[in-house]
Amino acid sequence: MAAANCTVSPKVLDGLSKFLETSFARKNIVHISKGNYIPWLKGKIWIVVKGLIKLRVPRIDGNEFILGFVGQNQVLGEPFSFIDHCSPFTLVDCELLHLPVEEVYNSPPLALAILESLSLRHRSTELNLTVLLEKTAEERVKAFLELIATDFGKPVEEGLMIDFLITHQDIANAVGLTRVTITRILSQLKKTGWLRKLDGGFLVIAF
Amino acid sequence: MAAANCTVSPKVLDGLSKFLETSFARKNIVHISKGNYIPWLKGKIWIVVKGLIKLRVPRIDGNEFILGFVGQNQVLGEPFSFIDHCSPFTLVDCELLHLPVEEVYNSPPLALAILESLSLRHRSTELNLTVLLEKTAEERVKAFLELIATDFGKPVEEGLMIDFLITHQDIANAVGLTRVTITRILSQLKKTGWLRKLDGGFLVIAF
Repeated sequence: MAAANCTVSPKVLDGLSKFLETSFARKNIVHISKGNYIPWLKGKIWIVVKGLIKLRVPRIDGNEFILGFVGQNQVLGEPFSFIDHCSPFTLVDCELLHLPVEEVYNSPPLALAILESLSLRHRSTELNLTVLLEKTAEERVKAFLELIATDFGKPVEEGLMIDFLITHQDIANAVGLTRVTITRILSQLKKTGWLRKLDGGFLVIAF
Repeated sequence: MAAANCTVSPKVLDGLSKFLETSFARKNIVHISKGNYIPWLKGKIWIVVKGLIKLRVPRIDGNEFILGFVGQNQVLGEPFSFIDHCSPFTLVDCELLHLPVEEVYNSPPLALAILESLSLRHRSTELNLTVLLEKTAEERVKAFLELIATDFGKPVEEGLMIDFLITHQDIANAVGLTRVTITRILSQLKKTGWLRKLDGGFLVIAF
């Protein structure tokens, strides 16, 4: 791997939490429950206070890309993307802060918090790129599962548990392979003991 | 394509140019000529005032990834990346502004300019992701060439000219395919008239 693990600097959390307290008083926080789309509005940004989001992008051919996953303290929204018709989808119950991008430009402390948050997003997006540059299909699937397990998984005795729903088709759409290929590779990874399927459709990575 | 073209808002340019004037007075701008590496230093950020940079990442197996290209007004550097040992490489003569990330946190107007600049970088990185998610090798190569031609190419009568040096191996390292595959695909694209090779190794895309 050419990449280090994901950590959030204390500064980010400080900056964001201060801002969140203020905003909370202004009732900018919304709850969006699991399995819903988040509106992708011009000039509007979203910050994940709690939860996990899948970034879906519909394709002209009827398929979709998955650009990645967005977690706590990360920012998303139209002002930070060139992707039209992005459809962020909540994988768990989420608390999200929403605000117009102009508000960021009118508040220097907020701009600093958003800069840290966008920096975190950029680092995730860059890591996703390195996953997709893995030469073989198996390396790509392993790198993808390692990345989301490290970023969003829960430590258990055997390794890291991915306890939110990812289908074989999702993995296919996130790494640019077909669903059939993903199913074949996951089956191989299970045979070698690198991966385990638990009741409820969860996966365990044994690093 | 699920993505729009790259534009820089007037606000970005204003913010950055104001800051550049101030910084220029403080002699923070360095010239790095074509074909050199830019130091990747902890806590240090670089802003491209003029020029074009290739982001190389060495791999353990001796190969390298190319994470993308960084152009005018875009920011790069260790604070915005999780990639260890990144080796940014100048493709043309460059003017770069360098500053410690703390300086950004001590200057709200600078923080706003860097936020816009990082936003631009994030959008480029996200577009690179969409390129790598194209299902077939040919689609991936075409999407990659379209992206760099649109972002950094020069309009000529026949289309867009990529007038900086990109080797077949570079394209391979940027799209996660082998050099042999790239050579085969470029040859096909030339046959169909989508791509033309000019004297001096330059490429022309006929969209």
